[in-house]
Amino acid sequence: MGEWVTVCEVGPRDGLQIAKSIMPTAAKANWIAAMAAAGVREIEVGSFVPPKLIPQMADTAEIVRAAVALPGLTVVALAPNLKGAQNAYAAGVHRIIVPVSVSEGHSRANTNRGTFEQVAEVGRVVAWLRDQERRVTLEAACATAFGCSIDGVIPTDAVVKVAEGLAQAGADRVALADTVGYGNPAQVHEVVRAVRAAIGPKLAKLHLHDTMGLGLANVLAGLEEGIRGFDAALAGLGGCPFAPGASGNIVTEDLVFMLESMGFSTGIALEKLIAARDLLHAGVPGEPMHGQVARAGIPKTFRAAA
Amino acid sequence: MGEWVTVCEVGPRDGLQIAKSIMPTAAKANWIAAMAAAGVREIEVGSFVPPKLIPQMADTAEIVRAAVALPGLTVVALAPNLKGAQNAYAAGVHRIIVPVSVSEGHSRANTNRGTFEQVAEVGRVVAWLRDQERRVTLEAACATAFGCSIDGVIPTDAVVKVAEGLAQAGADRVALADTVGYGNPAQVHEVVRAVRAAIGPKLAKLHLHDTMGLGLANVLAGLEEGIRGFDAALAGLGGCPFAPGASGNIVTEDLVFMLESMGFSTGIALEKLIAARDLLHAGVPGEPMHGQVARAGIPKTFRAAA
Repeated sequence: MGEWVTVCEVGPRDGLQIAKSIMPTAAKANWIAAMAAAGVREIEVGSFVPPKLIPQMADTAEIVRAAVALPGLTVVALAPNLKGAQNAYAAGVHRIIVPVSVSEGHSRANTNRGTFEQVAEVGRVVAWLRDQERRVTLEAACATAFGCSIDGVIPTDAVVKVAEGLAQAGADRVALADTVGYGNPAQVHEVVRAVRAAIGPKLAKLHLHDTMGLGLANVLAGLEEGIRGFDAALAGLGGCPFAPGASGNIVTEDLVFMLESMGFSTGIALEKLIAARDLLHAGVPGEPMHGQVARAGIPKTFRAAA
Repeated sequence: MGEWVTVCEVGPRDGLQIAKSIMPTAAKANWIAAMAAAGVREIEVGSFVPPKLIPQMADTAEIVRAAVALPGLTVVALAPNLKGAQNAYAAGVHRIIVPVSVSEGHSRANTNRGTFEQVAEVGRVVAWLRDQERRVTLEAACATAFGCSIDGVIPTDAVVKVAEGLAQAGADRVALADTVGYGNPAQVHEVVRAVRAAIGPKLAKLHLHDTMGLGLANVLAGLEEGIRGFDAALAGLGGCPFAPGASGNIVTEDLVFMLESMGFSTGIALEKLIAARDLLHAGVPGEPMHGQVARAGIPKTFRAAA
């Protein structure tokens, strides 16, 4: 078996949150169950935000309760603040992700707080979680770490400062997110090296978008830097609200194909994962479906390392 | 200015040859001129094959005569055999590409010759070109070097043997082609290293397809091995005859975006290159247009190194 790489499916959260229609709860639960049955070990199933802001996520607590019953699955949810984290905890999640935008402009647009006010909020979530009976992992995600559609270029030093702040605030893990998909492989090398020099193995994951078609090349740069955790969305669900027609997250199927082709193990059965696209499509039929491997078919040369 | 990477546009040959309609000659010449005006320094403008086999390429001699008048452009054409090479020479090309399939099955399907019979044909082309007045570069392209839809897995040793044969036959340059797009970055590293160990700097270029979405990741692996020449097609024109609906060549616009973002210089003005998509679309309106950068728009963080 090859070296392990953890693929976290984020379609139910990062994809569905900007879908034009709302996926029915039962359909969402079935889709998540199908991906877990295909071997996906981590799924970000939703976010704990006010339903009036993102109605697509209104059923997240119910989805979490269904997902924690799936064997071997780490159930992840996003929470922008302490209240969301408390709701996530109450619903039974295994891991909470709190986003912190490195870009001040994006931070205010996204969470109504400045970057370091949001770092302080992570500290409050950490403190609250420490007092609870059940152990829940807290991951802080540095959003817009590779560029921002509002503030433009994001200096590497700025990412390092935020990552250091998050580590000091007590986050268990830190992820770097290319929220709008502006990153390139040279930048991934540079930013990952700088952040790892600052916070060490707390740097756990990259969250990459394929807006400019560089998603898997950026994964490769991350792999070369030793990153062994990546977010992705089935069928590249999502898109970028700032770039109409553009793709969203990197495509889980294509990522798994690349990783397994290179000799890494993901634990995911590619045929079953591709079959789960049908459930996604049935639940939100209006959403565009991306993905090269699904379109071309798994080539005869592919033998999963798993 | 960053380190130079040469992008060779192959859409007029590798893309148009399997288009459902035939691009009119004047439209093709205008499209090629627009790409050259955008700064593309090398264009594979067509192939010298019997028009009854590939009617889309019937006007290649005329296209070559128009293209050689464009300032600073290296005009490249494909020729599967000596007769095609003679016609290419007569039309005035600067470089001839002779394909040699590493896969025996693909070689017979593509050129009606076994792999090493085709290596011998390269020798005949070299000998004939040496006797001509004008100097024309001969590039031999190892097709199916990363897998084959007919023969399946292609061992690295087999690629090395063909590349050695081509170097010994006198080819000026050797390219490695992922004809069906089955390659992955680990394999690109391995094959490029092995071939370079065998033939040194004669290894000049990678020709990659995006069938499985790994095209730019494979480019990155090639860059890391020191490769500084890549084929690509505007709008990813082409596709794979063995995979309906699949993408074809890597997308020139996305490749240029990645290279320039990483600090390499291509000499290509990205806005002008994207504008040339309109001429392509006008010439073959039924063909699907790929490309993430064109869809999303050039981000504000992009500043071409050129």
